Amino acid sequence: MYFGLYGKLVAKPGEADRVIEILNRNLDALSEVGCLLYVINQQADALETIWVTEVWLSSEHHEASLQLPEVRAAINEAMPLLTGEFDQVRLSTMGGLGLVV
Amino acid sequence: MYFGLYGKLVAKPGEADRVIEILNRNLDALSEVGCLLYVINQQADALETIWVTEVWLSSEHHEASLQLPEVRAAINEAMPLLTGEFDQVRLSTMGGLGLVV
Repeated sequence: MYFGLYGKLVAKPGEADRVIEILNRNLDALSEVGCLLYVINQQADALETIWVTEVWLSSEHHEASLQLPEVRAAINEAMPLLTGEFDQVRLSTMGGLGLVV
Repeated sequence: MYFGLYGKLVAKPGEADRVIEILNRNLDALSEVGCLLYVINQQADALETIWVTEVWLSSEHHEASLQLPEVRAAINEAMPLLTGEFDQVRLSTMGGLGLVV
């Protein structure tokens, strides 16, 4: 069993592409610290609404990643581009198709 | 860009494990018809609530999969185990880490 997260963030009008570019920047670093899946999506009926699908070895691996300098820099850079509306669904990930462990 | 879906279904009390077993049954068939990701999760604070993270080549591939005999059989078998509460978030999947195309 793994730790999963659906993380919702909302870009200010016109800023979704820049936010997505920032989210895409540190994928190798995340992979090195226990991230199995980090898929970036736009909500189909509201393209400023971005959902990140995450799966981690554990919630502790996820927490630790938030202290990486490159992750903190990305958060600081993205924050002014966001409305401040956040939501998340915390998950126990059981497996399935396409999850490469 | 791909078609993504967060699909929520809620198991009747005590039935989550059986529902998850059914959802896990046809992964090879889904892969053959354009499914890239089909990850099964339980909501961390409500284990009867199951979220399926799906990514497909297109929404048409997803629609077509619902007509597969084995998928229809699985839906029919799972339905009596569910409360009838469903929800979904439809997504444009942009890419990221761990999505094997």
